[in-house]
Amino acid sequence: MKHTISALMENRPGVLRRLAGLFGRRGYNIDSIVASTTEDHELTRMTIVVDCSEELIEQVLKQMSKLQEIREVENVTDAPVISRQLLILKLKSTINNRGDILQLAQAFRAKVADIRSDSVIIEATAEDSVMESMIETFRPYGIISMMKTGTVVLKK
Amino acid sequence: MKHTISALMENRPGVLRRLAGLFGRRGYNIDSIVASTTEDHELTRMTIVVDCSEELIEQVLKQMSKLQEIREVENVTDAPVISRQLLILKLKSTINNRGDILQLAQAFRAKVADIRSDSVIIEATAEDSVMESMIETFRPYGIISMMKTGTVVLKK
Repeated sequence: MKHTISALMENRPGVLRRLAGLFGRRGYNIDSIVASTTEDHELTRMTIVVDCSEELIEQVLKQMSKLQEIREVENVTDAPVISRQLLILKLKSTINNRGDILQLAQAFRAKVADIRSDSVIIEATAEDSVMESMIETFRPYGIISMMKTGTVVLKK
Repeated sequence: MKHTISALMENRPGVLRRLAGLFGRRGYNIDSIVASTTEDHELTRMTIVVDCSEELIEQVLKQMSKLQEIREVENVTDAPVISRQLLILKLKSTINNRGDILQLAQAFRAKVADIRSDSVIIEATAEDSVMESMIETFRPYGIISMMKTGTVVLKK
């Protein structure tokens, strides 16, 4: 099962290594990690989406909360949160289908970041489930490259 | 100086720990890490923004490229890339200023993710520099909480 963990931690050398140690064993499959300094540059907010058993996630949460750099840690899987990913997609595009691609981007409320004679780059934010269908819908045009952020969450 | 590193790596247990080890020493200040599985679920794409000297970053790049799980690693700081962050911002809002907030969101091409009687949640994508000014512009309304993804890049 996929679990989403949100943690607030001190941005000190070694904290990432200690955290990675907790997830470094077998039994975990990390879907995404997003870590970014907050307004307080001493603090980092991290969102981890990890696929593992209920027991393992409970263990990791316990161990995380014992690390002295961790200020807060919470399993927000079932909490009322806004959950989003950012997707940047570079698509093949010709003069013939460019209009279709731009229209589709608009329908997904995606922004156009770059247009060239043979490609279009779009950026979009969406929930995980919508993200998948967005990628599938654009796929037939030809995906040259893509970049996803992984999930971030904010409590409602 | 801030450096942006983009890496493609095998999603194997321990790879995060080995990577964290490279950045775990003093002299580095990690601004953000974004790691997410790609279309090929065996592979993870990672973007790291790190503040350190030119010499240190060269060392880390060399060491990273020696890790067997690393398929590609590149310093994209000066490369022609689309560079974006996702921001989710929960703002205090009353019936009196809600219109202003929604208008400002529209001006930044941000989406409204949630509206309550006393708060508004907006989601926006922007380059790092625009992100900062966006946050400053919304700050006077009262930021209840915020979440940034950190930077992701895609080659133009």
